[in-house]
Amino acid sequence: MKGTGIITLTTDFGLSDPYVGIMKGVILSINPEAQVIDISHQVKAGSITHGAGLLREAHHFFPKGTVHVGVVDPGVGGDRRPILINTGNHFFVGPDNGLFWPIIDAYKNAKIIHLTESDYFLPFISKTFHGRDIFAPVAAHLSRGVDPLKMGSAICDPAPLQFPVPQLKGGGLCGQIIRVDYFGNIITNIHWKDLSRFLGAGRPIVEVNDLVIENVCETYTEAKPGELLALIGSSDCLEIAVNLGRASDQLGMDSADLIGMEVKIRKVTKSSKKTE
Amino acid sequence: MKGTGIITLTTDFGLSDPYVGIMKGVILSINPEAQVIDISHQVKAGSITHGAGLLREAHHFFPKGTVHVGVVDPGVGGDRRPILINTGNHFFVGPDNGLFWPIIDAYKNAKIIHLTESDYFLPFISKTFHGRDIFAPVAAHLSRGVDPLKMGSAICDPAPLQFPVPQLKGGGLCGQIIRVDYFGNIITNIHWKDLSRFLGAGRPIVEVNDLVIENVCETYTEAKPGELLALIGSSDCLEIAVNLGRASDQLGMDSADLIGMEVKIRKVTKSSKKTE
Amino acid sequence: MKGTGIITLTTDFGLSDPYVGIMKGVILSINPEAQVIDISHQVKAGSITHGAGLLREAHHFFPKGTVHVGVVDPGVGGDRRPILINTGNHFFVGPDNGLFWPIIDAYKNAKIIHLTESDYFLPFISKTFHGRDIFAPVAAHLSRGVDPLKMGSAICDPAPLQFPVPQLKGGGLCGQIIRVDYFGNIITNIHWKDLSRFLGAGRPIVEVNDLVIENVCETYTEAKPGELLALIGSSDCLEIAVNLGRASDQLGMDSADLIGMEVKIRKVTKSSKKTE
Repeated sequence: MKGTGIITLTTDFGLSDPYVGIMKGVILSINPEAQVIDISHQVKAGSITHGAGLLREAHHFFPKGTVHVGVVDPGVGGDRRPILINTGNHFFVGPDNGLFWPIIDAYKNAKIIHLTESDYFLPFISKTFHGRDIFAPVAAHLSRGVDPLKMGSAICDPAPLQFPVPQLKGGGLCGQIIRVDYFGNIITNIHWKDLSRFLGAGRPIVEVNDLVIENVCETYTEAKPGELLALIGSSDCLEIAVNLGRASDQLGMDSADLIGMEVKIRKVTKSSKKTE
Repeated sequence: MKGTGIITLTTDFGLSDPYVGIMKGVILSINPEAQVIDISHQVKAGSITHGAGLLREAHHFFPKGTVHVGVVDPGVGGDRRPILINTGNHFFVGPDNGLFWPIIDAYKNAKIIHLTESDYFLPFISKTFHGRDIFAPVAAHLSRGVDPLKMGSAICDPAPLQFPVPQLKGGGLCGQIIRVDYFGNIITNIHWKDLSRFLGAGRPIVEVNDLVIENVCETYTEAKPGELLALIGSSDCLEIAVNLGRASDQLGMDSADLIGMEVKIRKVTKSSKKTE
Repeated sequence: MKGTGIITLTTDFGLSDPYVGIMKGVILSINPEAQVIDISHQVKAGSITHGAGLLREAHHFFPKGTVHVGVVDPGVGGDRRPILINTGNHFFVGPDNGLFWPIIDAYKNAKIIHLTESDYFLPFISKTFHGRDIFAPVAAHLSRGVDPLKMGSAICDPAPLQFPVPQLKGGGLCGQIIRVDYFGNIITNIHWKDLSRFLGAGRPIVEVNDLVIENVCETYTEAKPGELLALIGSSDCLEIAVNLGRASDQLGMDSADLIGMEVKIRKVTKSSKKTE
């Protein structure tokens, strides 16, 4: 696989500072033909788990040969390694701090390179902004078709990430809230495959905090306006939503406090009556 | 007319989630040469009127053959139709929920297609994210020059939108606030053509809530710093502003509460004295 | 030097309105091959100093021939001139109100053109949006290789800007806070060159408001989590930060109030004991 000129950026830099624009300037100085696409620059500051989730969710919609740069890098300037990952379909470039763990976990044959060849970096490497000095230039060179093996040496001990996965507990399936989106939809880590394996022929009841949701739908519009529902959302995971409203408001908590909160699925056999 | 590779996006998705990036990934997977431009992703959640206003204001600055994708789609997964509009100069792609009504209203000869040919969609269509599964791929195929007539069949009953227009009332011209911009400028739906037709040789006095503005200018800088003024703004409509300040703050209300508020123009003959 | 098709935008327009998208539409209508990159659209409304700082910090990371459009233009429609600057490496286009003063100051041989040739503007020039009507089209023509001398006549009296520079005062080096970034890092105008010239073989102590910071590091991670530190940040200037936290929160003030606040460096000879 060779880079095809498409590069994505996922960072916790926000959009008010010039940092994202500077990374694009570095990329275009090396590859003026590159097409740079923002995935998000509003990863929660320093949240490797949040960034890892976005990269996992978005990367596979891009064409083969896309280079995905991820910079959520609280350890910049310390001893964490800069790495490059080649899954055979996509490249990933960024810090070795767990940000790419879901990718490494999903593509078992991915090759991981510790970036050491400074020919592919900017001439001066700061201690505070490797997104500009290392990751952007490496991505630009990759996108022009440079062989990743020229950029460093293979490693097989990337930093892992404790990425939350749903667990069976007390007769229920317990996952957690991993994101509250711009619409106030509450997104869990419970994939529809986990859910249907757990439910079999049963019907789910969703519990989060003191809320019990029996209204499990296929679309937002099946619920009445303002009514809570659960459904499989666009990330293929269980989501709690309100038709024409904000589910997060109904839980009366900040998004930041909701992240990590447990969501429990109980199974009801289809013949059993609804409790009133 | 054929698509030329330029695609714009107008949505209520915000920028923190990966949804916009994912739509761009889908587009580039089908047309790697596409150039995707954001108009805004901060349409008020579910506000078809707000999105419709932005599309109406922005579309004509883009070159012939541009494909404009609009996704403000509270009815996603329900029975509203996915449509494509060809005005002869631009294409529009999105839900048939009124979002494109001002376009359909302005270009009487526009052709409207109900999108039914799933060859131009992603292979799997979710119930929650047609921006990704239908509208992005259709836009990408259009931008490569695919004939719109291959994508579905013509319809002539698009969903209308109650788009507010100024009215004569009690001897005045009454419009309403349709947007408060980032500068705190209050933008009305009173076009300069409506205004000059109403005024003739008269002079306008602008009233909104308890505020009376006699200071009608051509530029912001004609008013003293901090002073309220009315002028024809960059959208060709009457706007209430403060030189070097925020007009919305002087009304002491949230932007959300200002939207829809009445703005009344009274006419004073030029010879009459200003009341002190 | 000829334009190469890369155009950057730095404005105070925000991202909710269609203004930025409209400028891109105007550019692509003139040069469909242009690649438009956002530096920031979140310059503080009307803050020429803020915008000037971002342009100074970001421009040199872009390739030769890039056209940088800056629109922080509180005097739009008044008598300030529209200008173009050619440094030999980059072009700059925008209002002559001091926004490009740091550029003009840094590149003494830069040529400045007063933009007067309306052939390179949109046909109708509003009194409120020269970003759309003058600066975007001029940038697009430049990016296609049009000779800047065709666009107006040379001037040598551009509007200056009182750009704050560090001063020696009371035995210390006094600079000021020029930006608080998205991470809450407090960025000063004290360049590492000024600092090392002042310090010689000495050690710095940084004072801001009631805070005294002796913890001067090379990387964020040298400080304990939650601990204040000072370091040379990615803009090559002294920065006050907190490892894994927000320095601005520790000063207990809004970012807006921090801007302009004095930061004083005192020099301690290396042999002297730390005061406990």
